[in-house]
Amino acid sequence: MASIPSTPLLANELDIVIPTIRNLDFLEMWRLFFQPYHLIIVQDGDPTKTIRVPEGFDYELHNRNHVESLLGKRASCISFKDSACRCYGFLVSKKKYIYTIDDDCFVAKNPTGEDINALEQHIKNLLTPSTPHFFNTLYDPYRDGADFVRGYPFSLREGVPTAVSHGLWLNIPDYDAPTQLVKPHERNTRYVDAVMTLPKGTLFPMCGMNLAFDRELIGPAMYFGLMGHGQPIGRYDDMWAGWCVKVICDHLNLGVKTGLPYIWHSKASNPFVNLKKEYKGIFWQEEIIPFFQSVVLPKECTTVQKCYLALAEKVKEKLGSVDPYFTKLAEGMTTWIEAWDAHNPSSEATGSLANGLAKVNLGK
Amino acid sequence: MASIPSTPLLANELDIVIPTIRNLDFLEMWRLFFQPYHLIIVQDGDPTKTIRVPEGFDYELHNRNHVESLLGKRASCISFKDSACRCYGFLVSKKKYIYTIDDDCFVAKNPTGEDINALEQHIKNLLTPSTPHFFNTLYDPYRDGADFVRGYPFSLREGVPTAVSHGLWLNIPDYDAPTQLVKPHERNTRYVDAVMTLPKGTLFPMCGMNLAFDRELIGPAMYFGLMGHGQPIGRYDDMWAGWCVKVICDHLNLGVKTGLPYIWHSKASNPFVNLKKEYKGIFWQEEIIPFFQSVVLPKECTTVQKCYLALAEKVKEKLGSVDPYFTKLAEGMTTWIEAWDAHNPSSEATGSLANGLAKVNLGK
Repeated sequence: MASIPSTPLLANELDIVIPTIRNLDFLEMWRLFFQPYHLIIVQDGDPTKTIRVPEGFDYELHNRNHVESLLGKRASCISFKDSACRCYGFLVSKKKYIYTIDDDCFVAKNPTGEDINALEQHIKNLLTPSTPHFFNTLYDPYRDGADFVRGYPFSLREGVPTAVSHGLWLNIPDYDAPTQLVKPHERNTRYVDAVMTLPKGTLFPMCGMNLAFDRELIGPAMYFGLMGHGQPIGRYDDMWAGWCVKVICDHLNLGVKTGLPYIWHSKASNPFVNLKKEYKGIFWQEEIIPFFQSVVLPKECTTVQKCYLALAEKVKEKLGSVDPYFTKLAEGMTTWIEAWDAHNPSSEATGSLANGLAKVNLGK
Repeated sequence: MASIPSTPLLANELDIVIPTIRNLDFLEMWRLFFQPYHLIIVQDGDPTKTIRVPEGFDYELHNRNHVESLLGKRASCISFKDSACRCYGFLVSKKKYIYTIDDDCFVAKNPTGEDINALEQHIKNLLTPSTPHFFNTLYDPYRDGADFVRGYPFSLREGVPTAVSHGLWLNIPDYDAPTQLVKPHERNTRYVDAVMTLPKGTLFPMCGMNLAFDRELIGPAMYFGLMGHGQPIGRYDDMWAGWCVKVICDHLNLGVKTGLPYIWHSKASNPFVNLKKEYKGIFWQEEIIPFFQSVVLPKECTTVQKCYLALAEKVKEKLGSVDPYFTKLAEGMTTWIEAWDAHNPSSEATGSLANGLAKVNLGK
């Protein structure tokens, strides 16, 4: 088993956000790695139910009553009966970094049989730059034993600040309902020893199961949308956030990485239930993706908040005709920013510093 | 040791192109994998020197005299005293697929100690589609045990035809001279078990050491430029080809993959000699990359040849002011297409079929 560092990285600067409807026994397996950190537990569903948290963890627990009492009318932007509620945890955190994980995710082992400290790898990913402007064929050039290869422009080697670290899953892959139905027995057993930057202009399916980000750089864009109770769609919360985040990162010259670390995803969700939640998304994403691939944010959008509000406008304008849901979602996006700013008064300039830095880094 | 398949894949449809100045003893190690294929050896330097080829291989050998006698005046477009001469082998091949490898590259082992059949992996890469329009976080969705993840638009899952498979190197990484000088002892020991598509719009440093491609789809763009003897630059032959190829693949909706297979790169070239060859390129690439990142090919360019000639025009127009070399290079590019078409009379529509197919695949 891996040993825990005596001074865990960023212990005072990172919160772990866990959305759940059940007792958090899964934390026992993570004790070695998570105990030094503060947990924000977002209890979904019936607020009168008691969620058991193993002893020794430092945590705060928020249920629906807390959401409504803190946000008032604006609580409408936080989904109910859907793991999209996790973004409430991002909003109430006061830390610079967030790691969020699902409660059916366990510690994975690397190929030599050692427990993987997922959080440590995420932190390394976030603390080293990203390289979205040119692909490095040996993957992350900042890793030990790697570098930029021949032909990589020197002016791009400083990279840009990393806003997001997207981790992967061994065992149960994150498939949609149709693929689950067609391949019920498929397991992900391939450990790919790589971290890479998603190139500028490239969208990806961001999964919220094992995800870390720099809240100061990109927090206000990490909105998981309107899903679940009272909504026509589910299981697109993290996808929606990922598309918005990537477009804004590209605009503000911030980086998104994917690859290591792996967690062990223990249980496939029910594909029949998933199909019901997803099926509108399966149609809609065919129009959503071209929208995000072509959307251009105005130059005046120099903070994450400004970008996000501009994006909400465009969602209403361009996707409103796909389904009235998108008009409601655009309103939810606006409400989310109001709620974020109300509870994070000092963060209104989020992104502008990064933008300035990135310009210098690009040498342009 | 891996066993050789009883019927090697594409034995009658693939040529192996090897540029060299020395006896090809390295082929002994590849015998199991290469012997079923035809070799095109491009002898660089003094044509009177005899190159020894191990017995039992089916090969043709071309030296400078052959180049000049076949191409006449157009031989000026083929570099001399530089491995860029390898593209002559692409031109004289009559096969659909090409694999090209350097003579200091040996068979690598995978993490379980088996010999890697690099050619077999390249063929798999070329025979399965690419996915340049959206990133799949579990990498190549067509590999055994993998698929498209949740949130991947279904209309994009057919992918596009794969034109290029870019393989990697264990042991000596492909570093530029400055990095070689700074990190003389760095070795690449990380086996990353992944193949991925380079996203549309993303450039990469293509290395010619371990490279396969579909000659019918992209052959005329695989020109390795004017390098070596009489030229102000070297070691940018494969980079130049890679930038041109990627821009044209993006335009024609063809795919480029990178990752597996690995070869074992045995010997680092001399960093002092390399610095002399590269140093102008180190400056120039700072202007070349933005050029390739922003160049747009006219819609009328529906074949590789048309694309390449349009690109040559733009090189002259936009990079001619960087150095007179680029005007000469643009002329070399045009001459190359003339030479290609003269010796491949049936290939003038290269790319147009792919383009048509790709439109269907995109479902648009």
